[in-house]
Amino acid sequence: MTQRAAIEPFIAMEVAREASLRAAAGESIVRFDVGQPHWGAPAAALAAAEKAMRSEALGYTEGLGAMVLRREIAAMYAREHGLDIDPARIVITTGASGAFTLAFLALFDTAARVVIASPGYPPYRHILKALGMEAVIVEADVADGLQLTTTLLQQAGTFDGALVASPANPTGAMLSRDDLAGLCAAMRVAGKPLISDEIYHGLTYATPATTALAFDDDVIVVNSFSKYWAMTGWRVGWIVAPPRLVKSIERLAQNLTVAPPTISQVAALGALTAKQECEERRALYAENRALLLKELPGLGLPPVVTPGGAFYVLADVAAHTDDSMAFSRRLLAEAGVAVTPGVDFCATRGRGWARLAYCRPGAEIEVGIARLALLARG
Amino acid sequence: MTQRAAIEPFIAMEVAREASLRAAAGESIVRFDVGQPHWGAPAAALAAAEKAMRSEALGYTEGLGAMVLRREIAAMYAREHGLDIDPARIVITTGASGAFTLAFLALFDTAARVVIASPGYPPYRHILKALGMEAVIVEADVADGLQLTTTLLQQAGTFDGALVASPANPTGAMLSRDDLAGLCAAMRVAGKPLISDEIYHGLTYATPATTALAFDDDVIVVNSFSKYWAMTGWRVGWIVAPPRLVKSIERLAQNLTVAPPTISQVAALGALTAKQECEERRALYAENRALLLKELPGLGLPPVVTPGGAFYVLADVAAHTDDSMAFSRRLLAEAGVAVTPGVDFCATRGRGWARLAYCRPGAEIEVGIARLALLARG
Repeated sequence: MTQRAAIEPFIAMEVAREASLRAAAGESIVRFDVGQPHWGAPAAALAAAEKAMRSEALGYTEGLGAMVLRREIAAMYAREHGLDIDPARIVITTGASGAFTLAFLALFDTAARVVIASPGYPPYRHILKALGMEAVIVEADVADGLQLTTTLLQQAGTFDGALVASPANPTGAMLSRDDLAGLCAAMRVAGKPLISDEIYHGLTYATPATTALAFDDDVIVVNSFSKYWAMTGWRVGWIVAPPRLVKSIERLAQNLTVAPPTISQVAALGALTAKQECEERRALYAENRALLLKELPGLGLPPVVTPGGAFYVLADVAAHTDDSMAFSRRLLAEAGVAVTPGVDFCATRGRGWARLAYCRPGAEIEVGIARLALLARG
Repeated sequence: MTQRAAIEPFIAMEVAREASLRAAAGESIVRFDVGQPHWGAPAAALAAAEKAMRSEALGYTEGLGAMVLRREIAAMYAREHGLDIDPARIVITTGASGAFTLAFLALFDTAARVVIASPGYPPYRHILKALGMEAVIVEADVADGLQLTTTLLQQAGTFDGALVASPANPTGAMLSRDDLAGLCAAMRVAGKPLISDEIYHGLTYATPATTALAFDDDVIVVNSFSKYWAMTGWRVGWIVAPPRLVKSIERLAQNLTVAPPTISQVAALGALTAKQECEERRALYAENRALLLKELPGLGLPPVVTPGGAFYVLADVAAHTDDSMAFSRRLLAEAGVAVTPGVDFCATRGRGWARLAYCRPGAEIEVGIARLALLARG
């Protein structure tokens, strides 16, 4: 195996696989493990895709994506955030995954050090490693919502950039407007790029999320149609890049991808008109979230931090176990409930945590809570 | 700009952009420059996609792709090549582009040297560079059909792997069965991996192409639905990997892509049933090819090598110019004919070559030839 490919396995995938096998075999499994909406793309996205399939050859778009979609995303920034973003700065990508690869390659050279808070989304560090770069993992404090802080940045030693996510996976935790502004300022002073992962924007339940673009035109924003627009399998996302980076990203995109999937770009354009449907789904997630926040503490599974967004709760499992992986296996086998053990998100503290995703029908969430209650009592 | 992003620009893109602008402005432009089929995906692919959009949520597939598609691709190898390939060795990718990234990362570490013949598809060397690896460019001889040979391998110095394509872009040239077997054997003796780009398989006009899998289970084959199945914008391809590499590729794929686009995988599954439609298109390309091979020599644009497959002719432009880039600009401006100058494909000899793609309707090819004839006479 090359060093590049020597990525740690997703330990949690084992539970997810077992859950899928049991579900496929007809067992009733409550899926708190799956981080993708139960529902597919909005109706308007599907209608746009169907129409295009009947009338267009659907060849390559430009490497940076279809200009009509880039313009509509820019219009959304104006509408939702009051920001004037040049569509030329918006790069359509093959999901947020494709965005990270392009952004990292455009920003960093071999052996570059990129600061990331733990717990965090495991592919951040794995993509960096695969590309010959290094993730500098800093341990975030519960008192800080398990988010990156300027203090952690100061303690990180030398670095070439940093990555932040709000709302975050696996916690759902959000940075306050002031804290995000502070991180942007600190990175500007350091003269290093900040990548802001905003893929859970839209899915917030108290205060809306602030884009880092509100504070600094030099940040690199990554976003996606996967979560708010429920288009995971379509693989379409975007970058908002500083003007100076666009040419680099274009050359990388042309060579590494040719272009993002055309049918997905068409569907995404339709999705941008589907605010009502997306908001209806958000209301369902909000109900699920409220139910979990009400019930989990009584089940000995209190949230580690308050989840302001996304569709995750990170639960403290210390009342039940000191090994969240074994606990997850037991929950699946004995209660038919799949959760994601925290071990992939945080090497040091993950054995005490489990992530519950709540992006499925309310009835399933209720069944899951009832099963957890039985287990907690038994 | 990072070293990673310091990829040479596609010089040819300038001509393509100008051609698109003129066409969009209503000018009649014959597009010999575009390397994608004029026609879209086969009807069966579209029907499969439409059906799935109405009945499925289209979430993520597994990182290696949908098993049903992997099985059908394995069945195709049995049907077309008489080979028994375990579907577990087949990895669905986001186009051939995604396949190269995954294959290179699974095979090579930083600074690895990979032998590639020139002329060749520019992204090969650009992807390697972006990933921190090095393309070792060897100059292929016209006498060898501008293909990689075992002699060139011996002269390449130390290397960590090699890449070969048959039929090739920009030449359409094919390796004979014996020559491909010889390259496989030489790489096996060297103990280094051979990547065989087979994306133009199916598009052959004299003898069918042989897959490197016929000679060696340890080669890495890259293929795609873009060309024979005319699904460029759908971004779906595949790798056939040696069993020892599959786990590495899976971890890389899960982290770098999550999974390939689901709707595209569904469409690809439909496309595999569309042999008749694909063969009808191949017959059109065959007519275009015959016409070009008959007419080009008389226009002072003889093929540099015999194009046995793909949908390209590499023409020698020496009778007209010593600067194919200027010649291409002139053809576009004076004759309304867009061709691709050879400069991106071969740094040393590309000024004497131009690539003509013939994957558009026969009537357009005829108009193009008539315009070239006027220019040749004038």
